[in-house]
Amino acid sequence: MELSERALSVQASPIRRLTPLLLEAKKRGITVHHLNIGQPDIETPKVFWDAIKNYEEKVLAYGLSDGLPELKSAVVDYFARYNILLRQTDIQVTTAGSEALLYSLCLVSDPGEEVIVFEPFYTNYNGFGTIAGIKTVPVTTKAENGFSIPSAEEIEKKITSRTKAMIVCSPNNPTGHIMSPEEMERIAGIAKKHDLFIISDEVYREFTYEGAKATSFLEFKDVEDRVIVVDSISKRFSACGARVGFIVCKNPAIMSYALKFAQARLCPPTLEQLGALAAYRMDPSYFDPIRTEYQNRRDALIDTLHSNPEILVEKPQGAFYMMAKLPISDSDDFASWLLKDFNVDGETTMVAPGDGFYATKGLGTDEVRLAYVLNVERTKRAAQILMKGLEEYKRKKR
Amino acid sequence: MELSERALSVQASPIRRLTPLLLEAKKRGITVHHLNIGQPDIETPKVFWDAIKNYEEKVLAYGLSDGLPELKSAVVDYFARYNILLRQTDIQVTTAGSEALLYSLCLVSDPGEEVIVFEPFYTNYNGFGTIAGIKTVPVTTKAENGFSIPSAEEIEKKITSRTKAMIVCSPNNPTGHIMSPEEMERIAGIAKKHDLFIISDEVYREFTYEGAKATSFLEFKDVEDRVIVVDSISKRFSACGARVGFIVCKNPAIMSYALKFAQARLCPPTLEQLGALAAYRMDPSYFDPIRTEYQNRRDALIDTLHSNPEILVEKPQGAFYMMAKLPISDSDDFASWLLKDFNVDGETTMVAPGDGFYATKGLGTDEVRLAYVLNVERTKRAAQILMKGLEEYKRKKR
Repeated sequence: MELSERALSVQASPIRRLTPLLLEAKKRGITVHHLNIGQPDIETPKVFWDAIKNYEEKVLAYGLSDGLPELKSAVVDYFARYNILLRQTDIQVTTAGSEALLYSLCLVSDPGEEVIVFEPFYTNYNGFGTIAGIKTVPVTTKAENGFSIPSAEEIEKKITSRTKAMIVCSPNNPTGHIMSPEEMERIAGIAKKHDLFIISDEVYREFTYEGAKATSFLEFKDVEDRVIVVDSISKRFSACGARVGFIVCKNPAIMSYALKFAQARLCPPTLEQLGALAAYRMDPSYFDPIRTEYQNRRDALIDTLHSNPEILVEKPQGAFYMMAKLPISDSDDFASWLLKDFNVDGETTMVAPGDGFYATKGLGTDEVRLAYVLNVERTKRAAQILMKGLEEYKRKKR
Repeated sequence: MELSERALSVQASPIRRLTPLLLEAKKRGITVHHLNIGQPDIETPKVFWDAIKNYEEKVLAYGLSDGLPELKSAVVDYFARYNILLRQTDIQVTTAGSEALLYSLCLVSDPGEEVIVFEPFYTNYNGFGTIAGIKTVPVTTKAENGFSIPSAEEIEKKITSRTKAMIVCSPNNPTGHIMSPEEMERIAGIAKKHDLFIISDEVYREFTYEGAKATSFLEFKDVEDRVIVVDSISKRFSACGARVGFIVCKNPAIMSYALKFAQARLCPPTLEQLGALAAYRMDPSYFDPIRTEYQNRRDALIDTLHSNPEILVEKPQGAFYMMAKLPISDSDDFASWLLKDFNVDGETTMVAPGDGFYATKGLGTDEVRLAYVLNVERTKRAAQILMKGLEEYKRKKR
């Protein structure tokens, strides 16, 4: 009686696999600062809560498989602000970006086929790939190049007859990199040349700093039939526990098959769609103070990290993550140690080991992903504890 | 640029594929009675709503990947009422039974492998199988045998070296059949003999009539390491739009891999888990009047159907569905016609075409699945309209 290969081979999330150590630390009374997970402390908009709390239906019924029409309409309006003109039929509401990713992979690839990812990458692409029975093939991006997309030649080395798509993410989790229109043109060119789909994870669209702007792949007319955008309210409206996301795609065939997948699972959660609807209807100025706040957090984190010249990390332009190279050889061991054996006055910091964000074995073992989702003071405190932990860990390992 | 085979081959849900016709009928002002979908009109418990509306956190944050510990604890207590003793670690909260089904399939089978289903079956097993890249192999159950599980020989004919599991559902959607302990022993024996997993869909546990009782596969000690129970609050607490379900399994290895799948998608929706927690804490007498109500609805529906001797349908013992054989040859055409071309004083009835519940081509084309989830009066009305529609349809087709 054997479990499936895909079960046995699925990678534990580097963001979550240390959860047992976290729970033990909490049991011991340790305060844990989370730099490991993109869980913002920003309040979910009041209108979101109000919409749910004012719901007056007596039966929490199934909704439409592709989501609440009013929500889709609000999303059309939202994209129009970016001069991206969509029809409601270009949008399917999903159970978070997670489901949108899984469906996108299943729409474009069959078991045994391959999808290009740019490592370090959002680790769960791997998990969804494993569930879908496909292989994620890494193209490495490098800190010294600001984690930008490599040359077409580099990418084409990894394309085979089994390659069906490339997954890109901008603003990027975990690097914070924002793709330039030139990088995106390169991706689009390769997609056309090799007849590939582009799965574009754009959930951090609003989180750009110092005037940087994120371009959507929906703006690229000549690949619009092969672009599937994955979107989500989790970060946008600090509603990670809501589980509302979207597939956005201008290719009607793709949308019709996406709907069939969606019908199998009946519908996304009803109440949070109402919350999302209210949030999408807010004035876009909602994002201004939040953008400033994240920028301040980023600066607080990077300033503290830069106080140690042995830590290599660039100031990212977007999202709320950074990959930091530490003067250690096993960031998984270090991250575990921080939870098990270290504290400063009853406090410690949790980080996500870097290797989990790479598909190439051996990469990222001296890196950690840090999320700057806590207020400035707490981010600073978490970073200072991390610095102290690093010193003590290095001393112990000597 | 081709979509995946699995996308191109995914079956449209027979429960949902007529939705466009439904929306058009509604636009024309037609009142549509839904016998097509298991969407109960029973009010979701007040404690469910209160738990959500009294939630006071300001941030709707990620929860644990395996769900709220308090909810898992309440589910342990719930199963204890059935003398099924579980640990919290035997339970994983999923995004509805749908996700529990998809994960169960992916846990036990790899692309290209096979899973036995007993047709007519809950049609979405097919959809999840297609997404997972596996094949659902049908064993036919028959109305004349009360849709009971066939002999071991019949089942073994369909088992190959690629077979990894059997999916069973009791009380059954769409037939209403409740498996006897003897039928379950037969399944258990085959599972042991051929080293298969048993995926047991038990979401209708409470819906049993005239003293019938549903046995859980968790009660079968000698297969407890190979049983994965799929459960859900959708029907139990009339909370279909909540998207809260469960994997229940006493095999720690299965649960540990299920958790890795779950970590990829981060967490199930937070708010509805709180609602579910409150609902599970209700006194079990909650189900008594509901069971009586469904029994009355069943009787109202079957009495009306039996008024036409050309309709073949048995009184089911459980769940809230029945498969009815109609004196027509194309129930899909009939179901579409009811929405497009028929009404009685501005009302019509929607039914689910039977063929979608069979994997064997040609079966079910003269059947429809009917759900009795509307109040007695409305069920009667819906059935009467269906009777009139059937007469008129037959006249037109002559």
